[in-house]
Amino acid sequence: MTEIKNCLDLADLAPADLQDLINLAQAYQDGQAVPALKRPVYAANLFFENSTRTKSSFQMAEKKLGIDLIEVDPKTSSVQKGETLSDTVRTLQAIGVDLTVIRHSQTAWYQDLVENPHIHLGLLNAGDGAGVHPSQTLLDLLTIQKEFGQIKGLKIGIIGDLAHSRVAKSDAKILKQLGAELYFGGPRAWYSNEFDGLGHFGNLEEILPELDVVMMLRVQLERFDDINRESFTTVTYYDQYGLTLDRAKLMKDSAIIMHPAPVNRDVEIASELVDGGKSRIFTQMHNGVYARMAMLTKVLQARGLMEEQK
Amino acid sequence: MTEIKNCLDLADLAPADLQDLINLAQAYQDGQAVPALKRPVYAANLFFENSTRTKSSFQMAEKKLGIDLIEVDPKTSSVQKGETLSDTVRTLQAIGVDLTVIRHSQTAWYQDLVENPHIHLGLLNAGDGAGVHPSQTLLDLLTIQKEFGQIKGLKIGIIGDLAHSRVAKSDAKILKQLGAELYFGGPRAWYSNEFDGLGHFGNLEEILPELDVVMMLRVQLERFDDINRESFTTVTYYDQYGLTLDRAKLMKDSAIIMHPAPVNRDVEIASELVDGGKSRIFTQMHNGVYARMAMLTKVLQARGLMEEQK
Amino acid sequence: MTEIKNCLDLADLAPADLQDLINLAQAYQDGQAVPALKRPVYAANLFFENSTRTKSSFQMAEKKLGIDLIEVDPKTSSVQKGETLSDTVRTLQAIGVDLTVIRHSQTAWYQDLVENPHIHLGLLNAGDGAGVHPSQTLLDLLTIQKEFGQIKGLKIGIIGDLAHSRVAKSDAKILKQLGAELYFGGPRAWYSNEFDGLGHFGNLEEILPELDVVMMLRVQLERFDDINRESFTTVTYYDQYGLTLDRAKLMKDSAIIMHPAPVNRDVEIASELVDGGKSRIFTQMHNGVYARMAMLTKVLQARGLMEEQK
Repeated sequence: MTEIKNCLDLADLAPADLQDLINLAQAYQDGQAVPALKRPVYAANLFFENSTRTKSSFQMAEKKLGIDLIEVDPKTSSVQKGETLSDTVRTLQAIGVDLTVIRHSQTAWYQDLVENPHIHLGLLNAGDGAGVHPSQTLLDLLTIQKEFGQIKGLKIGIIGDLAHSRVAKSDAKILKQLGAELYFGGPRAWYSNEFDGLGHFGNLEEILPELDVVMMLRVQLERFDDINRESFTTVTYYDQYGLTLDRAKLMKDSAIIMHPAPVNRDVEIASELVDGGKSRIFTQMHNGVYARMAMLTKVLQARGLMEEQK
Repeated sequence: MTEIKNCLDLADLAPADLQDLINLAQAYQDGQAVPALKRPVYAANLFFENSTRTKSSFQMAEKKLGIDLIEVDPKTSSVQKGETLSDTVRTLQAIGVDLTVIRHSQTAWYQDLVENPHIHLGLLNAGDGAGVHPSQTLLDLLTIQKEFGQIKGLKIGIIGDLAHSRVAKSDAKILKQLGAELYFGGPRAWYSNEFDGLGHFGNLEEILPELDVVMMLRVQLERFDDINRESFTTVTYYDQYGLTLDRAKLMKDSAIIMHPAPVNRDVEIASELVDGGKSRIFTQMHNGVYARMAMLTKVLQARGLMEEQK
Repeated sequence: MTEIKNCLDLADLAPADLQDLINLAQAYQDGQAVPALKRPVYAANLFFENSTRTKSSFQMAEKKLGIDLIEVDPKTSSVQKGETLSDTVRTLQAIGVDLTVIRHSQTAWYQDLVENPHIHLGLLNAGDGAGVHPSQTLLDLLTIQKEFGQIKGLKIGIIGDLAHSRVAKSDAKILKQLGAELYFGGPRAWYSNEFDGLGHFGNLEEILPELDVVMMLRVQLERFDDINRESFTTVTYYDQYGLTLDRAKLMKDSAIIMHPAPVNRDVEIASELVDGGKSRIFTQMHNGVYARMAMLTKVLQARGLMEEQK
């Protein structure tokens, strides 16, 4: 196995390492004991963008691993005095923080930090601008693997605001690499040619009957202004691209519904479906804690801060 | 005893259960040991409205019971992306949170959650809109019981902004139920007919000599605009309805002064009285930690998360 | 040794007590074990002004001493309802907080609290308005002592916005008292006659060759408006008063560069120098944790909350 000293983009991992990460997440969920820390370990979660799910899930994962948290709120920090991200991170490192989990609006915020010879604490990416969202991707992989036993050969549709979703970009690349067959849907204007060659773009009525996994993406409501000249509202979005009760009837019996959340109920998906038998949306959140425990474990072990699994 | 799976409104409790809760708070304050948790327990405190006292008091109570806290700031959470309260709570539940303490501006915010078949984590009400504030009421009951040994037969006055105070509504109903004789005071325009039948409304000079307990309510300073046409200021309020040094001389020797705080010194009460021998205002805050420990204990025990008291 | 029941201004300490504090910080850094707490101890950090460094450093120090933290955010607290600082502190005391670390824009915010007969919890000053910043001064002293073995006889320059820097005021007084020879530099308009008699004011070219320690102060960028009529920008500041690469060549080989941070790179100091061999800027931050552990230890021991060092 390769050592994972930072966890920034799952695309950097060899397939065997990625599978190892998924398996560790699964093992934690199945009750495998957490290896001991070799000494007290301190982490800081720096969320420069709003989040409930990812931030509280990382907190839970850190607590379950026995990591101590230093609370830093970027909104009341020296970042407000114009400090660069690398100087903020070096400050945390100087006071003894071992790991930092960062969400930042800048795509690839970690690039400068990784190249900075003065920075040696562990970096985990909780979302970078228009980039990726590796812990979300890992929890999606875990959710699919638990459901179907494997990812290879599954037909997976990613539907909605493809151009602006780091979940879509993050997931599509990795799912393809692991052998899934991809489909895309949603407004044409929201498609991005970054997805060309990864799968087939089609309308929902056409693709839904094929799919094993229907991943609906969140609609950024503020985006309804700039699609095109015609009035385009949440109601017309739902009618044209939403997973309505009628469209859900097109799905296979064994197919599941996923969504990175927060869901806009009755905009991208019928509220009833969110809570229905096909939905794995809250299961995804539950799995997210184990996915993050696995990521943190690998980084801690690569840094000699945690015992190896027996 | 009835099991208290959620603690939302003390009026839901049978008198014996309420007395049991007060007694447990008292016992904790007298040094009774905290029963062990059966497994690690995680709580989140969601304060959608500003608070120092209640929030930090719940934190202290949780820490004294050995509960782990997941920090969520509603002001930087997905609530800002339009997520409903029930979906926020289900998110926390999905990541493994066992209990959530919520203050929210919506009256009876908990109604939807209690009826939601997908929500099964513990809910504690730290204040709901124009509704109630059970942990404040419980600490008030504890403060009075410690002072007088019982509540039955005591003459208790609640004075000030009755119409907008959830403390007033919360306390009046329960105090009446426990056998106290109630008096009300303050501006007539701030009285609410919700209190009709619960006690006697009178001016301070008339009621103060009768009372065992003088509960002054906080004045929301922003409310001075909309009372009536005449100019009405903090100075005229203090003159007409405040507990001045002169008025305090009308009180019985054994009577005590209470206030839910934060106090506007020299608006609803003379600053000197806040710090004087009759004041139990800081005692109330001190008692609040034990009151909240008792509430949390009952909910934890009802859920099988904490050992029973021996 | 005198007991340090509160730590508010290092100028209150006898020289032997101050030396004792520096030595304890040094001992902690050298691996001396932390004495046990006699019972659970609770602290609250109240930062009314933004901070990353000081706040996270105090958190780390508190955690290393085994102190439990009650999280209070002054921006969402009852302070917003007009509560006075002394009532906020008394609230925390009432719920069982033993120590509070406060940064506040009011100079000598602690004066009222120390004189208040109702306040008996421990107070630590993390910066008071135009006053002092004792934990910063202590970490500066520790950094200098570790470098040179002693402070007496060293030539130390403090350069920049002297009039508005609590670090400058705090450090200058104490360094002088400990026998350092002081020099001052920066814009004349930013000098304050508070420093008269403490040292020599000169231009950088004149004083740099003399100095053992070059302490650069942070420039408050918002201050560029009110210096004088001429346009004065970060570029002209850097040219006239910044520690450029050329000016750094005037320094002695053994001299070091310090800065309280956050640094404005290429405004008060060349970015390359921040990361260079003479810089102790991140070392200062690292030392800060041990300095704060020492302060907290002394206060805890003075209050009978922590065992004495063996």
